[in-house]
Amino acid sequence: MAKAKKKVEPIILITNDDGVTAPGIKALVEAVKGLGKVVVVAPDKPQSGMGHAITIGHPLRLSRLNSPEDVEIYSCSGTPVDCVKLAVDVVLHGKPDICISGINHGANHSINVIYSGTMSAALEASIESIPSIGFSLLDYSIEADFTASKIYARKIVEFVLKNKSLDKHLCLNVNIPAVEEKLIKGIKICKQAYAKYEEKFDERKDPHGRRYYWLTGEFQNLDKTKDTDVWALKNNFVSVVPVQFDLTNYLLKTKLEKTLKN
Amino acid sequence: MAKAKKKVEPIILITNDDGVTAPGIKALVEAVKGLGKVVVVAPDKPQSGMGHAITIGHPLRLSRLNSPEDVEIYSCSGTPVDCVKLAVDVVLHGKPDICISGINHGANHSINVIYSGTMSAALEASIESIPSIGFSLLDYSIEADFTASKIYARKIVEFVLKNKSLDKHLCLNVNIPAVEEKLIKGIKICKQAYAKYEEKFDERKDPHGRRYYWLTGEFQNLDKTKDTDVWALKNNFVSVVPVQFDLTNYLLKTKLEKTLKN
Repeated sequence: MAKAKKKVEPIILITNDDGVTAPGIKALVEAVKGLGKVVVVAPDKPQSGMGHAITIGHPLRLSRLNSPEDVEIYSCSGTPVDCVKLAVDVVLHGKPDICISGINHGANHSINVIYSGTMSAALEASIESIPSIGFSLLDYSIEADFTASKIYARKIVEFVLKNKSLDKHLCLNVNIPAVEEKLIKGIKICKQAYAKYEEKFDERKDPHGRRYYWLTGEFQNLDKTKDTDVWALKNNFVSVVPVQFDLTNYLLKTKLEKTLKN
Repeated sequence: MAKAKKKVEPIILITNDDGVTAPGIKALVEAVKGLGKVVVVAPDKPQSGMGHAITIGHPLRLSRLNSPEDVEIYSCSGTPVDCVKLAVDVVLHGKPDICISGINHGANHSINVIYSGTMSAALEASIESIPSIGFSLLDYSIEADFTASKIYARKIVEFVLKNKSLDKHLCLNVNIPAVEEKLIKGIKICKQAYAKYEEKFDERKDPHGRRYYWLTGEFQNLDKTKDTDVWALKNNFVSVVPVQFDLTNYLLKTKLEKTLKN
């Protein structure tokens, strides 16, 4: 009698930048329940704003944590990008079928993509040709409601698992507005808005009279077009920006070829 | 009698990721001597591989160091990107005319651009519409010879000061081959090569029997085209890649608009 062919489950690697204990990563694990074998490798402490940092000057630690039977969870002493590298080389001994990062507590639209550990982890996976998605909810609170985020995260993960071939380095930056699910108008494919922070360092003096500075800044959206992630989120859409690690400015390349001579 | 109009010197902000005491930053200060007023704000310790990390969880320190009369030098406890932000908000109280970063001890071509603190500092300046350039010499040695690098750095800084209007967010990634000046064939405008690292974590045990991991990796150039920075450097050209912080993958955006429906 022919044996039923055993279905091979996809391996889903999950990481984040808020740390392995953040509610957002728990929400992401729940969101993809049943879609594959879930392995979590995430930082042992908050790593927001770490961008694409890697750890060169000191070694990394990796610890397996207690977890439900259907999930493996590891905490790592490094950055989100370190987590992805360690997951592939040391934990999985190979590439997962997908790498998802988040759900981040707070927005990663527009210029935030470049500072975000959540998105850098996703981008790192895409360098390795692992399809990847970063998810962020526009709510910094530790008690944020991830109900709508989980619905959209599952939907987009299912889409990517079925449509990996769209790009050799498929990587999506998904942001979810902080409103009830019924108010969300759907998904909008967007470009990254041009926005920046107007820095204002908060200067203080320590008890010994020496100055120190806290980084603070005010977000400024300088992009008034309507196909941006900032516009979509303001209008209660889930924004999806496909991102890439080729930073070449091709337009300027052409100009320089005509002007910067030897 | 009419007074001679006083020429306003351009302000040249210099930073790096190897730290304020690195020979490479000294070489960059020397390279631009006489082109403007030089202000250095650089990390107080090596910050290689810090990517676009910013410091959120703790405050920053800034100290003015002793320096020759024509240069101001500050050391900062943060990342290269923090240095640029602090320089603009706290040191200069405004934007410099140009921000240059380096000269990095080691290559920042291809995928290195995304891990590099040197290039992230330059990119941060370009977000603020400050024309910027990152310089790297393909020699990790502390005793690297910056003679040729200084000649090309000066030439490219002069070009950018005269041609700021080429792009609102002009940012260049310049790499210099580690050969004598007479062997350099000139400047080549390039795209970022697709390359990556094949990670191999070095697993060790501490004196207490607990595992730890050192990040190591082997560089793999997967891009065989000839208009890349890797090709140019291998053929003894100085590579110039214009870079940008808009990570949108526009090609994939178009595909997703047709496939990822609500």
